[in-house]
Amino acid sequence: MKNKIRVFLLAILMMCGMFSVRIQAQVVEDFKPSAVNQPGKQYPMVNSEGRVRVQISAPEATHVQFDISAVKYDLIKDENGIWTGECAPQDEGFHYYQLWVDGAAVPDPGSLYYYGASRWGSGIEIPAKDQDFYALKNVPHGQVTEQIYYSEQSKSMRRCFVYTPPGYNKDINKKYPVLYLQHGGGEDETGWSNQGHANLIMDNLIADGKSVPFIIVMDNGTWAMPRPPRNRDQQGERPREWPPKGWADGFMNTLLEDIIPMIDVNYRTIADGEHRAMAGLSMGGMQTRVITLANPDVFSYVGMFSGGSISPEDVENAPGFKEKNKLLFISYGSRELENGRGFGGDPKANTEALKEAGMNTHFYVSPLTAHEWQSWRRGLHEFAPLLFTK
Amino acid sequence: MKNKIRVFLLAILMMCGMFSVRIQAQVVEDFKPSAVNQPGKQYPMVNSEGRVRVQISAPEATHVQFDISAVKYDLIKDENGIWTGECAPQDEGFHYYQLWVDGAAVPDPGSLYYYGASRWGSGIEIPAKDQDFYALKNVPHGQVTEQIYYSEQSKSMRRCFVYTPPGYNKDINKKYPVLYLQHGGGEDETGWSNQGHANLIMDNLIADGKSVPFIIVMDNGTWAMPRPPRNRDQQGERPREWPPKGWADGFMNTLLEDIIPMIDVNYRTIADGEHRAMAGLSMGGMQTRVITLANPDVFSYVGMFSGGSISPEDVENAPGFKEKNKLLFISYGSRELENGRGFGGDPKANTEALKEAGMNTHFYVSPLTAHEWQSWRRGLHEFAPLLFTK
Repeated sequence: MKNKIRVFLLAILMMCGMFSVRIQAQVVEDFKPSAVNQPGKQYPMVNSEGRVRVQISAPEATHVQFDISAVKYDLIKDENGIWTGECAPQDEGFHYYQLWVDGAAVPDPGSLYYYGASRWGSGIEIPAKDQDFYALKNVPHGQVTEQIYYSEQSKSMRRCFVYTPPGYNKDINKKYPVLYLQHGGGEDETGWSNQGHANLIMDNLIADGKSVPFIIVMDNGTWAMPRPPRNRDQQGERPREWPPKGWADGFMNTLLEDIIPMIDVNYRTIADGEHRAMAGLSMGGMQTRVITLANPDVFSYVGMFSGGSISPEDVENAPGFKEKNKLLFISYGSRELENGRGFGGDPKANTEALKEAGMNTHFYVSPLTAHEWQSWRRGLHEFAPLLFTK
Repeated sequence: MKNKIRVFLLAILMMCGMFSVRIQAQVVEDFKPSAVNQPGKQYPMVNSEGRVRVQISAPEATHVQFDISAVKYDLIKDENGIWTGECAPQDEGFHYYQLWVDGAAVPDPGSLYYYGASRWGSGIEIPAKDQDFYALKNVPHGQVTEQIYYSEQSKSMRRCFVYTPPGYNKDINKKYPVLYLQHGGGEDETGWSNQGHANLIMDNLIADGKSVPFIIVMDNGTWAMPRPPRNRDQQGERPREWPPKGWADGFMNTLLEDIIPMIDVNYRTIADGEHRAMAGLSMGGMQTRVITLANPDVFSYVGMFSGGSISPEDVENAPGFKEKNKLLFISYGSRELENGRGFGGDPKANTEALKEAGMNTHFYVSPLTAHEWQSWRRGLHEFAPLLFTK
């Protein structure tokens, strides 16, 4: 049955791809170079419909494709060996993509590169109606700092990125609360600042007086993830539950034993659970759920973006969580909910049930976005003003 | 005549390429994944001879090449459509490279990416005998911070990276001297920390007590570069001198009017010329020459890595430079000097003449390296201990 659904979805995706080629004459010709191109590069371009047009020189190639949002579009070759083509209109926001040159999956030499989908590769930005909230403006800016440290848990050098808010270096007696903010599966510690623009979101919120200033720590949560089920199947093992019990322990240990103490020593933090938050997207949200439920003394503000929810049963089984928690924020992209995605349980029902039980919960849905960065940028933008206000 | 030399060199390069294919049987089979691969990637690999072996899946391709150090090597396809091949032994250190898939120049999906040669693309690290000086070790680490600021000169937002030494956040009353450190042509503000490892070089020197701690500011000097002569030719113009007079004024203005004041406000600097240095590689060295000669009150320590030298005539024509200057450091890779490269004048003779005239000059030659990052890492490693000691 599952295979049948897969074949059906594949057929639809292929039809979409063919359809985009057929309606090429109707493409609106107002393409402009993408905002995230490499310096001096004209392609990729984006038009007002949200279509992306790519171009690459490959004179000896016979088949070149543009691969975005799980659809591959054939490019067309001109007499100079330049291949050009565009995709169907994309959702607002950021998307990973790649090119296929005669069967080789490669980054587009025109785009900037981002870590996601378990590789450094191309990304594109479809201008969003609300892009002002993460735009680079002439407001006071905080800083993103690369912090190198030794981890006793992994016996190795690690690094994270630390956002300090505007003014951090001015009033050197002031101390700040801290948000630990995690990326998703196949991403790393660079995601939230590179493609998430967490720093610009905070700079703009603080400039508008909508958020109190706080520190954000963005570390690498991939460290302790077990292999996904597909690999287990190949080994003839099938885990009974996914993710398996204890899957977040590795990152939990390094977070509690290495990262938080290191941050509290090196930055001017208010080093208690009442001034500490944890949030994450997708896998990072799932980690946030496990780690904050188990450590209500350590974190009192919790955010999960497209990464599941916390149920009344979870809270019942987590002594102290309900009493200590000051905020539980759950968000999804609307297209994720259309698809019935929720990583176990109904996230909206769970969140409302906990609100009725007296907790300070919030449920946010990002309009017309999927399991992608625009949902998570908006999630952070809604979450941050609620932090450290109690 | 020049064209004949070019053809001759090209012929030699092509022969080298063919030669590498012929001697494939003699390649030492001790390849290991490169230290700068993407997470989980086995290729590219490097062996003990300094050969690089690349591999890419391109089942439909008919011609795939590995392009490194200005030589293209043909890869060989196996029955699964995987292309593999290696280059001749490379010099120790860091090299940019790319792949050609049926005529498309693309980054290697296995490598990390760096900005150089005017593009984000692949880099490879050939382990060097002296690599310990830029290794990531468990010593106290400084921080590299992304600093966003508004430039009045260019009426736009800009960014730089700022290295603050270990302990900067501990003793918050201490003030530090500052080195302004510039990248080369086709590179940007990310080069000195990403591929140059300037932060690790400093952390290790400071841990060994070989350098006093200071701040390093790495900004983008490309801003004001005029078009190179080739483009001018296409327009029918040919500049009489290269670089043309005034070519460094744009960056000089933003450095003096925007960057230095911004750094002195946001960091704990000793804000005078006696505690300020400027250095750069290649184009950045040429900028350093022009800017420091014109501003002896602003900078008293000067370094130029593979970027020309300062002659006795330069000093004569720069009032105050000789009196104010505390250090003039000139370096090259030995292979650059073999090729007679010196960007005008004999850098060694110039530097020695100024030493005889009473200036504190140093001339350093990096053994067996060319116009590449290993020369510049070593240049910084020799230069830094001489800084701010007078």
